Amino acid sequence: MAERPSTLERLVFFSDAVFAIAITLLAIDLRLPPLASDTDQALLAAIWDARGGLFAFFLSFFIVGAFWIGHLRTLHSIARTDGRFVALNLVFLFFVALVPFPTSVLAVHGDLAFGAIVYAAFIGIASLASAGLWWYATRLGGLADVTPALAHAVEIRVLVTPAMFLLSIPAALVSPVLAELVWLASFPATALVSRRLRIGSAMERSLSTE
Amino acid sequence: MAERPSTLERLVFFSDAVFAIAITLLAIDLRLPPLASDTDQALLAAIWDARGGLFAFFLSFFIVGAFWIGHLRTLHSIARTDGRFVALNLVFLFFVALVPFPTSVLAVHGDLAFGAIVYAAFIGIASLASAGLWWYATRLGGLADVTPALAHAVEIRVLVTPAMFLLSIPAALVSPVLAELVWLASFPATALVSRRLRIGSAMERSLSTE
Amino acid sequence: MAERPSTLERLVFFSDAVFAIAITLLAIDLRLPPLASDTDQALLAAIWDARGGLFAFFLSFFIVGAFWIGHLRTLHSIARTDGRFVALNLVFLFFVALVPFPTSVLAVHGDLAFGAIVYAAFIGIASLASAGLWWYATRLGGLADVTPALAHAVEIRVLVTPAMFLLSIPAALVSPVLAELVWLASFPATALVSRRLRIGSAMERSLSTE
Amino acid sequence: MAERPSTLERLVFFSDAVFAIAITLLAIDLRLPPLASDTDQALLAAIWDARGGLFAFFLSFFIVGAFWIGHLRTLHSIARTDGRFVALNLVFLFFVALVPFPTSVLAVHGDLAFGAIVYAAFIGIASLASAGLWWYATRLGGLADVTPALAHAVEIRVLVTPAMFLLSIPAALVSPVLAELVWLASFPATALVSRRLRIGSAMERSLSTE
Repeated sequence: MAERPSTLERLVFFSDAVFAIAITLLAIDLRLPPLASDTDQALLAAIWDARGGLFAFFLSFFIVGAFWIGHLRTLHSIARTDGRFVALNLVFLFFVALVPFPTSVLAVHGDLAFGAIVYAAFIGIASLASAGLWWYATRLGGLADVTPALAHAVEIRVLVTPAMFLLSIPAALVSPVLAELVWLASFPATALVSRRLRIGSAMERSLSTE
Repeated sequence: MAERPSTLERLVFFSDAVFAIAITLLAIDLRLPPLASDTDQALLAAIWDARGGLFAFFLSFFIVGAFWIGHLRTLHSIARTDGRFVALNLVFLFFVALVPFPTSVLAVHGDLAFGAIVYAAFIGIASLASAGLWWYATRLGGLADVTPALAHAVEIRVLVTPAMFLLSIPAALVSPVLAELVWLASFPATALVSRRLRIGSAMERSLSTE
Repeated sequence: MAERPSTLERLVFFSDAVFAIAITLLAIDLRLPPLASDTDQALLAAIWDARGGLFAFFLSFFIVGAFWIGHLRTLHSIARTDGRFVALNLVFLFFVALVPFPTSVLAVHGDLAFGAIVYAAFIGIASLASAGLWWYATRLGGLADVTPALAHAVEIRVLVTPAMFLLSIPAALVSPVLAELVWLASFPATALVSRRLRIGSAMERSLSTE
Repeated sequence: MAERPSTLERLVFFSDAVFAIAITLLAIDLRLPPLASDTDQALLAAIWDARGGLFAFFLSFFIVGAFWIGHLRTLHSIARTDGRFVALNLVFLFFVALVPFPTSVLAVHGDLAFGAIVYAAFIGIASLASAGLWWYATRLGGLADVTPALAHAVEIRVLVTPAMFLLSIPAALVSPVLAELVWLASFPATALVSRRLRIGSAMERSLSTE
């Protein structure tokens, strides 16, 4: 038998490629419209008008980046895979590949309550799928280097992002800017919950290599 | 000699990258047209009008995902490759890379019989190419962990998707919606045939890692 | 020291990703214009009008595919790399990444002599860069499993594609269709030269895995 | 435990994929506008008018290529990673993924001082992030095959590109063409500093494989 990548290696390579493409395709919509006049002032104004798209790119880039780090941690700890895990991973990647669509809605219609709601609902569901991967992994069998107490703490931690995005939906009805602040707050909130549950140092191990 | 990826590893990485890019590029056409007015109602209506594109994305994502799982199983079992297998794999990837085109035809013209026929014929041919990889692999030499009876059962199973898509062409002449139902039915039909041919548990092994 | 991919492995992965993306992005321009009327006949006519784009996609897909197989063979045989090889590889990938541009020129302006000349000149230069990788590899040190006589035969073989594309430039002045026939003839011509120089079976080894 | 890619391997694969996609997506904007007339002369004129976009593609391709070689060298020497390195790498990839945006600004508005300034400032900051990876790596622990004197020399070398791009900002106020000359000069300048600091041969080792 010739040497070949294992199923787990292909699962990881394929997933990494989807993450990388989705994260990079986000930038494809960042193009300036034709300028009113060929002057520095008109160009400056056009870039200023592009700030909504740049904010949406920034937000989605680091959300997908956080998904990738979560995926890296889950696959680092998982002891084995089965057909259901492969299928669940594909469903998660479906949401990852779709991220550029709600991002484009947010970029163009972020001033509308419904534009913010579409984005919040989509990222909320996508992060639930990301959390589902960890939940399924913990039920699938032993996790390497992970105590049951730690696995349970992470089960709570992975619900922070979905909770904050779904809770931002009513906030968007008050004001889309309020929803955006809730989204940005989800990054420090996840870090805070990690510290409270004392899972930071354990999780750090999966990102460290000696 | 420096360490380097083997031919089989490059074949797998290159194929995985094409699968991942094709599956992610599907989302690039999902963009809303300019709204008639800058209101929540107009945005809601625009997203409702995008349902054809979202359905086409959903369908093609999981069809390419199923192609990827089939490719994973074939390459998991294949004992060796030759120049013809590399060429056949390239022909299959040609169809995978082309999937966004019939998907865009379906997204925009899914209400026309001919729009549904273009999609059905294309996916039918692409899944024939996918089946061809398994057929060639079984003739190329021994398959690892695969008995002749199982290899033969899989030869039948891989024809379910092409058969259903090619049979959906006359259905599209009756109604494009009928053809779409046949396509969606191809997923449970493949699962059913797998169970009848008792190849589920054997195939499951290729997705499991202990 | 943690386990990590070697320089040669990264060179291969990065190159494979560029090949895979360039080959898949080719399909991004294959989109139908709005139909004159929402009928099967108008859709059929639009797909017929897209035949120039489909031919350009088909041609460029298999040209880049042939570049990939040539790259696979060179990296399979090369004994070592140096900074110049990394730089030369980057120049070659520059042309690979640029392929979608002349392909789009051919798709839209393939009926003009100058459209065919742009494509022929570009692919001619790109395949010279591909040939340059093999030439440099043979001078860099011993090639694994490759006799000097075989290395020399391949040095001639890799010049077939550049020669035919550059020779098709005057043919395009007579008729763009004549140039297209010369391009298609480059595939069997390469196979023929391989057989004449008796390098087929040796090259086959690099694509086979026992 | 099934065999799986290590954290460092996934970091490298994911980064390589982002580099490869960003570098290849640069070509997506290189499309000719509809011709005034369907003649060779009109096509020749349209390609001539595309020279700004081709120059921007050329420049950004080799800048991202140089980022990739720098990343390859850093990851080749780094003894270990931690969570901060993963986060810093993600911030760097944020700028890599964003490169197509300032490239499109340069392609269309390279004749304006502000167009050149946007590009210079962006690449200056992105190359600071690239330099930051090396600086952090040197502080994170021992570097393999790298003496402290060499590590310090490279710390200076990686500042050449950011310095030249940030210094080109006032040059752009004089003339955008002057800024472009400074950018092109950054390639030989980096090579020259490498020679002066005698780090060429040591760095060459990371690109060579015996």
